[in-house]
Amino acid sequence: AASVEVREEIDDLFTGASAYWLKESDLQLRFCTNETQATREKFVAKLRRLGFDISVSEVFPPAPAAIAVLKERGLRPHLLVHDGLLPEFDGVDKTNPNCVIVGDAAENFSYQNLNEAFRVLIGLEKPVLFSLGQGRYYKETDGLKLDVGVYMKALEYACDLKAEVIGKPSPTFFQSVLNDMGLQPHEVLMIGDDLLNDVGGAQHCGMKGVQVRTGKYRPIDERHPTVTADGTVDNLAQAVDMILSQRGH
Amino acid sequence: AASVEVREEIDDLFTGASAYWLKESDLQLRFCTNETQATREKFVAKLRRLGFDISVSEVFPPAPAAIAVLKERGLRPHLLVHDGLLPEFDGVDKTNPNCVIVGDAAENFSYQNLNEAFRVLIGLEKPVLFSLGQGRYYKETDGLKLDVGVYMKALEYACDLKAEVIGKPSPTFFQSVLNDMGLQPHEVLMIGDDLLNDVGGAQHCGMKGVQVRTGKYRPIDERHPTVTADGTVDNLAQAVDMILSQRGH
Repeated sequence: AASVEVREEIDDLFTGASAYWLKESDLQLRFCTNETQATREKFVAKLRRLGFDISVSEVFPPAPAAIAVLKERGLRPHLLVHDGLLPEFDGVDKTNPNCVIVGDAAENFSYQNLNEAFRVLIGLEKPVLFSLGQGRYYKETDGLKLDVGVYMKALEYACDLKAEVIGKPSPTFFQSVLNDMGLQPHEVLMIGDDLLNDVGGAQHCGMKGVQVRTGKYRPIDERHPTVTADGTVDNLAQAVDMILSQRGH
Repeated sequence: AASVEVREEIDDLFTGASAYWLKESDLQLRFCTNETQATREKFVAKLRRLGFDISVSEVFPPAPAAIAVLKERGLRPHLLVHDGLLPEFDGVDKTNPNCVIVGDAAENFSYQNLNEAFRVLIGLEKPVLFSLGQGRYYKETDGLKLDVGVYMKALEYACDLKAEVIGKPSPTFFQSVLNDMGLQPHEVLMIGDDLLNDVGGAQHCGMKGVQVRTGKYRPIDERHPTVTADGTVDNLAQAVDMILSQRGH
């Protein structure tokens, strides 16, 4: 069984025959992503265009996990998220909010919008802030972009509180994926480009973690003081080769 | 000698005869402010309209202190500040920036502008971030507003660095005011509404600190675990009364 991190560097990841190989193998596959700019449907459509025959039920982004937490705790969110993510929250009661959810809102991170989220939080007797990930920045074709973690820290400081992170590397997030697969951590391998959120997060839950040298990968990752990947490969194709050849033994 | 904190709550502070009393006394007076939305000239004009006969040389905001540091260290700033503050930096070389200065930029804190400041910092071999204050939020007539400290924390997290704070409660900032007065800390009393930045900051430098129950004051301040004001009064008029009556003894 394998999990794969996918985001903007998706075009780097899905090269060569890897998509075909994964599909042809009988490995269980889940796509763990901190993508919070679009619904699962849009995300899957993007992967399908890249030749991946996957379904919405195989994709695990933070938003649905957050909605499960809201239901469990009877919370109604004020949303500071990307317009593309809003449909995921269609069925959620957002009246008279008693918590704030911050996602990768990008251009929606205006002063006015951040101020509004702040005012909701500071007006609550027990302020609750959920953050859909804690990334610092990511790379797009036109350069580096600030990620949700930066605005999470901003609101944490403004309100003197600690956000609850939903998504990688949160152990409850990884555990929900394992539950869905019906597997134990030692039976699962995580492949991703982010040493701390993908590899470290998975290892923290008892999975193996392999890093690909694409996307967020930096050479310095291979001598990180606290996180050591169970393998480092050039791309997803190599990672799939590795998995399949090890199963062969 | 007395220092006074002034900002948006200025209309609360300068009530009754306090302005006249201060002016008539022979006390040396300096206005310490973390105001970074306007030049000193505009700031003084505002105080003059309120009946205060003060000059630009008596006002100590963070921007001129920052410019002194830039000169000392040969740094050229990228500015993320309020449009109203830009004239203070007119004579400063801003080409090919090797540091970032963040002030209370308010509406200028767009995603694009914060991203631009981030890209400058992350592109530097030795990133240097100056923050003109570290306030969390302040109150305006239309409600609470996020202050510069929130965006300082955002950039700190994005770039994994620690900002250098210029302005209250920085000891070097208070010391520059003491130097200008030619006085020892024990000869000076600070009056302000912010327990940590005004009162605590002044006390940390050996001054006395009195809190006024206006602006940012909250009742909880009077039982703060680490900072205890040398006096708490309802407004500036009472603080002036107190100073003048104690001098009388």
